[in-house]
Amino acid sequence: MDVSQTPAQLLGQLRDKGPLVHNITNFVVMNSTANALLAVGASPIMAHALEEMEEMASLADALVINIGTLSSHWIEAMRRAGTTARERGAPIVLDPVGAGASRLRTETCLTLLNEVSPGIVRGNGSEIMALAGAAATTKGVDSTAGSREAGEAARELAGRFACVVVVSGEVDIITDGTREITVHGGHALMPKVTGMGCTCSALVGAFAAVTDSGFEAAVGAMAAAAAAGEAAGRDARGPGSFQVGFLDALYRLAPEQIDTPQRLS
Amino acid sequence: MDVSQTPAQLLGQLRDKGPLVHNITNFVVMNSTANALLAVGASPIMAHALEEMEEMASLADALVINIGTLSSHWIEAMRRAGTTARERGAPIVLDPVGAGASRLRTETCLTLLNEVSPGIVRGNGSEIMALAGAAATTKGVDSTAGSREAGEAARELAGRFACVVVVSGEVDIITDGTREITVHGGHALMPKVTGMGCTCSALVGAFAAVTDSGFEAAVGAMAAAAAAGEAAGRDARGPGSFQVGFLDALYRLAPEQIDTPQRLS
Amino acid sequence: MDVSQTPAQLLGQLRDKGPLVHNITNFVVMNSTANALLAVGASPIMAHALEEMEEMASLADALVINIGTLSSHWIEAMRRAGTTARERGAPIVLDPVGAGASRLRTETCLTLLNEVSPGIVRGNGSEIMALAGAAATTKGVDSTAGSREAGEAARELAGRFACVVVVSGEVDIITDGTREITVHGGHALMPKVTGMGCTCSALVGAFAAVTDSGFEAAVGAMAAAAAAGEAAGRDARGPGSFQVGFLDALYRLAPEQIDTPQRLS
Repeated sequence: MDVSQTPAQLLGQLRDKGPLVHNITNFVVMNSTANALLAVGASPIMAHALEEMEEMASLADALVINIGTLSSHWIEAMRRAGTTARERGAPIVLDPVGAGASRLRTETCLTLLNEVSPGIVRGNGSEIMALAGAAATTKGVDSTAGSREAGEAARELAGRFACVVVVSGEVDIITDGTREITVHGGHALMPKVTGMGCTCSALVGAFAAVTDSGFEAAVGAMAAAAAAGEAAGRDARGPGSFQVGFLDALYRLAPEQIDTPQRLS
Repeated sequence: MDVSQTPAQLLGQLRDKGPLVHNITNFVVMNSTANALLAVGASPIMAHALEEMEEMASLADALVINIGTLSSHWIEAMRRAGTTARERGAPIVLDPVGAGASRLRTETCLTLLNEVSPGIVRGNGSEIMALAGAAATTKGVDSTAGSREAGEAARELAGRFACVVVVSGEVDIITDGTREITVHGGHALMPKVTGMGCTCSALVGAFAAVTDSGFEAAVGAMAAAAAAGEAAGRDARGPGSFQVGFLDALYRLAPEQIDTPQRLS
Repeated sequence: MDVSQTPAQLLGQLRDKGPLVHNITNFVVMNSTANALLAVGASPIMAHALEEMEEMASLADALVINIGTLSSHWIEAMRRAGTTARERGAPIVLDPVGAGASRLRTETCLTLLNEVSPGIVRGNGSEIMALAGAAATTKGVDSTAGSREAGEAARELAGRFACVVVVSGEVDIITDGTREITVHGGHALMPKVTGMGCTCSALVGAFAAVTDSGFEAAVGAMAAAAAAGEAAGRDARGPGSFQVGFLDALYRLAPEQIDTPQRLS
């Protein structure tokens, strides 16, 4: 296991420090990601007004930019928050929701990758492939491409923009272009709950706030999400109770649930 | 029973095809309607930016326009998405949330009815009466008018705009101006959960994506919602657990729960 | 106990009358506060478009203004709704989310306090201290300052703006500058659910709609929230099930749960 701090160790630090995570995110998931951040031990700031971007970004220990319900006047807020976070050395996570489905989304992501230099990008297979320029037909925002092709696209994207790339799916792939770890676990109901990917991106932000390694932060967050998904899936009767159980599980996660022998490979 | 495909048959097709449903909807229900669409077997796209409306509408198998938290700059996005959907022959559902409560809402609905020609309109009694020009005092967005008056307004509206009209309430009325079916079921807690009407409109969109009959789509969706409400109500301890149970029930619905002898009349 | 109507008596009136509560609130909590209002027996209107502010504010029995995800173009809607509510004599509640964290927020609150004269302000300790001009370092939007300092700031603010001030925390403080009541109860999981403070503000609006006493409305709403939190906490396995249980408990609250001997002091 190619990490110096295990996911459970990072979670312990996250719970101790309670980092502030600034989210510029989409309307669909604002509530559920804020709740996931609270459940895991972080403190969410949900703010997007241009007039307060520098101040909010200055308070935060990490920034998560999610383009899920993008409008053109939000883009400048994303750039401004990103610039402030970058100057302060705070980690930045980009969630390219729906990249490939519209020019607005794909181009906004490329602008942010170039200007703001997020240290971590988390998307599903087709989003990562769209960003890497690979041919991907995006079917909405919850689609998955083949994991082999997505893995190649992730390595390419990570190399080109010197960032860590997370492809979430049945098995999550985390790569910095050189190293690669896969995270196992989760549950079949996860894609049946809206915004689980966005929640993972927010969790990556929370983990990134407590370590200098974006790679280990991404591994830690995805391992925590996979463990919480597993636990929630055991008692769920459907996607409604799964969503509730996921927050409960995230709040109650024990080290031995996360750092199982099968979790990382 | 005046339908060639039963609600359960349509649900089976919906689950097989997993249609993409594009929602331009209100901030209050974005999360819950996306989750309901996923639970029933569809794939939600939540997008409203003018710059990507044609692209998004081109991907989708159905469009649902909901004016619940209307702002003037969203209206153009609704028109543009509607025009694209219409040109492609994709079904369009209009949810006239709060029609009658403000001129902005009533007039926007009339504009959309005239320019975009939604095939299906779903509202509560006072919204449908407001649109039909009948005298209705709207008390917020969750009120109900007498079902007799609402039924008359629905037939009038359906005739005038050549569409299917759904009036939801204790008993749901579906009419195309000529035929009329009432759907029975649901639970007294449904009006105690915000956005259940909006959820029904989204479900109508999902069903409409798998049949050419807007009338049968509306009947199917309302029957599925009524069945899920019944099931959720059995174990609910209040509106919180009802909401969770509704998503679980929608995900688990069996044909015999929907196509009961008492469901349609 | 310095109230002429107990919290349980006010709740009874609220359930009888079902008042309409107009909320101009933040995107994160629109769904959860609408659900809390429905659960307690009120009827929510969620609307913020400038074009319909006077009409919506004219329908409502109370107005709740929450600046949680403030943008500059919402401020005019808040002023306009506030002016209409004030002219009609409808109670106004201000929730100064994140006051102190950015100039935009602090200044908007002061503008609203001066121009709209809300009868009740509800915030956490650091928000109330920021508004009172006391030196407070705001850590996000969920932070708490010492209750002694917060109490002083609340009395000062209440005196300066002739309003009732609620400081929520482990023990809630309600003051009109002269009288002061503390509310006991709730549960340690409450700060782990996003928007519980916003929910309390919305409940204050619902209670304010059925009494002329802003002070008693605030006491009643905070007592109901504390009682529902206690009940929800008993069965919760974490913040997910707590949130569900809170809505159920609010819906089922019995007088003896609210008006316990220990509740108020």
